[in-house]
Amino acid sequence: MAPALVTLLTDFGTRDPFVGVMKGVVLAACPRASIVDLTHEIEPQRVRDAALWLGFAYPWFGPGTVHVGVVDPGVGGARRALAARADGQLFVAPDNGILEVVRRKAKQFEARSLDPLALGISVRSRTFHGRDLFAPVAGRLAAGTLAFEHAGAVVEPLPTSLVPEARVGEHSADGEVVLVDRFGNLVTNLEAEALTRLPVATVRVAGRELAVVGTYTDLDPGGCGAVVGSFGQLELVCRDGSAAKELGIQSGARVRVDW
Amino acid sequence: MAPALVTLLTDFGTRDPFVGVMKGVVLAACPRASIVDLTHEIEPQRVRDAALWLGFAYPWFGPGTVHVGVVDPGVGGARRALAARADGQLFVAPDNGILEVVRRKAKQFEARSLDPLALGISVRSRTFHGRDLFAPVAGRLAAGTLAFEHAGAVVEPLPTSLVPEARVGEHSADGEVVLVDRFGNLVTNLEAEALTRLPVATVRVAGRELAVVGTYTDLDPGGCGAVVGSFGQLELVCRDGSAAKELGIQSGARVRVDW
Amino acid sequence: MAPALVTLLTDFGTRDPFVGVMKGVVLAACPRASIVDLTHEIEPQRVRDAALWLGFAYPWFGPGTVHVGVVDPGVGGARRALAARADGQLFVAPDNGILEVVRRKAKQFEARSLDPLALGISVRSRTFHGRDLFAPVAGRLAAGTLAFEHAGAVVEPLPTSLVPEARVGEHSADGEVVLVDRFGNLVTNLEAEALTRLPVATVRVAGRELAVVGTYTDLDPGGCGAVVGSFGQLELVCRDGSAAKELGIQSGARVRVDW
Repeated sequence: MAPALVTLLTDFGTRDPFVGVMKGVVLAACPRASIVDLTHEIEPQRVRDAALWLGFAYPWFGPGTVHVGVVDPGVGGARRALAARADGQLFVAPDNGILEVVRRKAKQFEARSLDPLALGISVRSRTFHGRDLFAPVAGRLAAGTLAFEHAGAVVEPLPTSLVPEARVGEHSADGEVVLVDRFGNLVTNLEAEALTRLPVATVRVAGRELAVVGTYTDLDPGGCGAVVGSFGQLELVCRDGSAAKELGIQSGARVRVDW
Repeated sequence: MAPALVTLLTDFGTRDPFVGVMKGVVLAACPRASIVDLTHEIEPQRVRDAALWLGFAYPWFGPGTVHVGVVDPGVGGARRALAARADGQLFVAPDNGILEVVRRKAKQFEARSLDPLALGISVRSRTFHGRDLFAPVAGRLAAGTLAFEHAGAVVEPLPTSLVPEARVGEHSADGEVVLVDRFGNLVTNLEAEALTRLPVATVRVAGRELAVVGTYTDLDPGGCGAVVGSFGQLELVCRDGSAAKELGIQSGARVRVDW
Repeated sequence: MAPALVTLLTDFGTRDPFVGVMKGVVLAACPRASIVDLTHEIEPQRVRDAALWLGFAYPWFGPGTVHVGVVDPGVGGARRALAARADGQLFVAPDNGILEVVRRKAKQFEARSLDPLALGISVRSRTFHGRDLFAPVAGRLAAGTLAFEHAGAVVEPLPTSLVPEARVGEHSADGEVVLVDRFGNLVTNLEAEALTRLPVATVRVAGRELAVVGTYTDLDPGGCGAVVGSFGQLELVCRDGSAAKELGIQSGARVRVDW
């Protein structure tokens, strides 16, 4: 029997038992599931941050993994609910752009519209579809009692552009900071792979010039630079400190790379 | 073999490895257990909040689930330790009211007093019964190596009234805010089921009148109203914001409903 | 088949999906693993706190458990990566002192130096060895597909002295506060077992004299005293409050015990 792996990414926090209850529902449908929390600390309703982290995280999971992404300000309203398949992994999420980065990165992407009635799922609340719709669908997909092909009609997700794409030229690239992680590292939308000759490039941000280094310890104590971050993006970092604080910048700051 | 599901609800936080160590003890007694965190962020020693969340959460788990609730200011003192069974689910917790809401909601409820000596459990500390008493009992109950009937003598839990009950009349109801969730939604002790003609009711709180709506998106941006929350309680909410902040109220605020 | 238990202790926090991704990698190598979070809220780069909590927590897990400890300011630089075995449990961690307390407590301790190349592990980043080196090694050790004896050459860990040891005499002992827990309890480096006649001892800290009591409820409401904490250390506590706040002290405060 194949292992059943379900991940959860929400803005529900861990202060209240919302996530725990979702897990109860997943396990009712798939008792042998391993459930992994990606994060529940997305800032309330920041669909864009959820889209980015989901896009960075999913490639580290194996085929058949079911990812549940619920940052859902439109819950209970007219927005559609989706199941999707991207490169052999499965996703359930509202149709609000939370799958935008996954979709952009995936070689193959297909979405289906969830119809609770057709699936025999009685949605008990209008405010907590994480528990009442996405969790039971995820549990069934993980258990194999619902095939992706039967999850609903094939649909095109809503076109969204939450996450700006970098512009990469022959000798330079223009991007921006898109995420600040817990350490204050500034993750940009510049993919290192696309930046030829990156090691000898110069990175300009907030009026400063930063060198590209291999890792934190290549910097002087307190010094700042750019590294290829662990998800393949160019990141601005400071040794033993917060780049957000040191450089005084946040999401949206423009970053230019020349080589 | 039946799946073994154990949930944990404590005020231990996740900053220190208290909860992790409890899980080690549960898994030593029941290696195949799935362990679900309900929350560990109950404000230290707020037994009432724990009682409420446990009462809201447990109906979403299946028969045989073992719920561990440890908010325990009296640990190591004279308070009893209980195992309880409510509608086919099991609970282990101190006898301090943490099971009050479960008991009130359950159709069938029975408690037994845990005697570590009789159970062959050597309680190693006087300050961490979560690890030393409740976790091993939960693990054994989940594993089936301890039957609930053998957990101890049948007892009546301490009578407590931590959570006030709403008064529901024919054309109105009086209740109060009992919990504030992570989003600032205000959960009341008014059960929606009991409020006949709720959709056309008026909700009065803090000098304001709120309409009852179906979900967040039925409100204007920034607007506030009342909804039937996901655990069946009347909740006061604001669209894309915190009702606690917008309405300037907290737990204890009186809420009146007229229809 | 033996159960496979992996614990994680890091300073990665839970705001970003770093830990979730590590779990994906562990589960790819060992799909049946139970994964327990010890904590991810170590203050960034406080290797000493990680060493202490890891030393306090591991005795509560069974033989064969694999503990992953990643607080790793030197990631990607010259520091070695270790697998270790202590009293039948396994550890993977950077060689920076994070195993210091485990090593001091264990009756038997052996470390091996991880060579990713020899292990066939392609380390994809220079900044996230938790995911790229420690997680795959932990997964393989848990799955039994890598024997500890084949993890690398036997080495002596870097000699470190992050955690001061107490001086215990015939009638007195001198120690200090080494950790403050989430409740504000002050954990000292004085092991209760070593303090003969502890119950009649006097504890001096910050110009105050505290009595030794059995548990919180032996104190008057608001009162402070010393207890034998749940990990066997002398702890300074206040009933229903934070000893750190009440006594106005933090890590490093000197504690003297006379009996």
